[in-house]
Amino acid sequence: MYKKLLSAGVALALGAGYTLTAFSQGKPETLVKQRQAVMTLHWKYFGPLVAMERGRAPYDAAVAARNAGYLETLGKMPWTDFDPSTKNAKSPALPAIFTEPAKFKQAQEQYLGEIAKLVTVSKTGDEASVKAQIGAVNKSCGNCHDNFREPF
Amino acid sequence: MYKKLLSAGVALALGAGYTLTAFSQGKPETLVKQRQAVMTLHWKYFGPLVAMERGRAPYDAAVAARNAGYLETLGKMPWTDFDPSTKNAKSPALPAIFTEPAKFKQAQEQYLGEIAKLVTVSKTGDEASVKAQIGAVNKSCGNCHDNFREPF
Repeated sequence: MYKKLLSAGVALALGAGYTLTAFSQGKPETLVKQRQAVMTLHWKYFGPLVAMERGRAPYDAAVAARNAGYLETLGKMPWTDFDPSTKNAKSPALPAIFTEPAKFKQAQEQYLGEIAKLVTVSKTGDEASVKAQIGAVNKSCGNCHDNFREPF
Repeated sequence: MYKKLLSAGVALALGAGYTLTAFSQGKPETLVKQRQAVMTLHWKYFGPLVAMERGRAPYDAAVAARNAGYLETLGKMPWTDFDPSTKNAKSPALPAIFTEPAKFKQAQEQYLGEIAKLVTVSKTGDEASVKAQIGAVNKSCGNCHDNFREPF
């Protein structure tokens, strides 16, 4: 039964109104759900790093390195889900995402650059450098959110 | 302002009632949200592979390899969120997760083993082998869901 339902799920996901390719986009609500799932997991793995940076949790080099790696993979996931088809879907995303795509792209690249640096630095395990880079990532999160997301 | 709110967010996430370590668990609802976020993203990247396997989308070796890598990382994320504290939280997870932990662990390991094989096979790009392994992963998803998740 699981098989049949899964089959129906795929049929639905790739169903009427969407081009049937391996890159198929889903319904706007699905895209919003997917990009929000990335944000949920980003926070799961970035929150503990901010806690370390601020001295609210003990510094743990292994967790920092592991989480940095997870964040790097997660960082590849949300962007295509900010599709123009989601412009009117319920979400805290601001219209600037679609009216200023170059600026949005730049904010993404800045964020991903800081995450890449965090991955590199976290491999050294050096506490001060790792904490400084956690701060830099945090700033790039804020930079994008300030311009492209409704205030929390 | 973003900074202040983020700070408040961290304080909340790591707040009263939870041990303040880098491994801090959140509230049961947060854990459920996090593990469901993994399932959402699993489906985002596994759905297109099932579509390829069933001939509903053209085979794309690069997408198969990329998605397999994403699934491998995602596969590391949900398990600690099946914490006993979530036993009574609203979710389709079945009590067997907590009453039969060894069986649940075995199902996880079977799934992760099939994902690891998919990563290896997808690097060869061989269509028939990749498709067969997509089917094997799917079976292991179903095996775990059949025993530990309410029917869809």
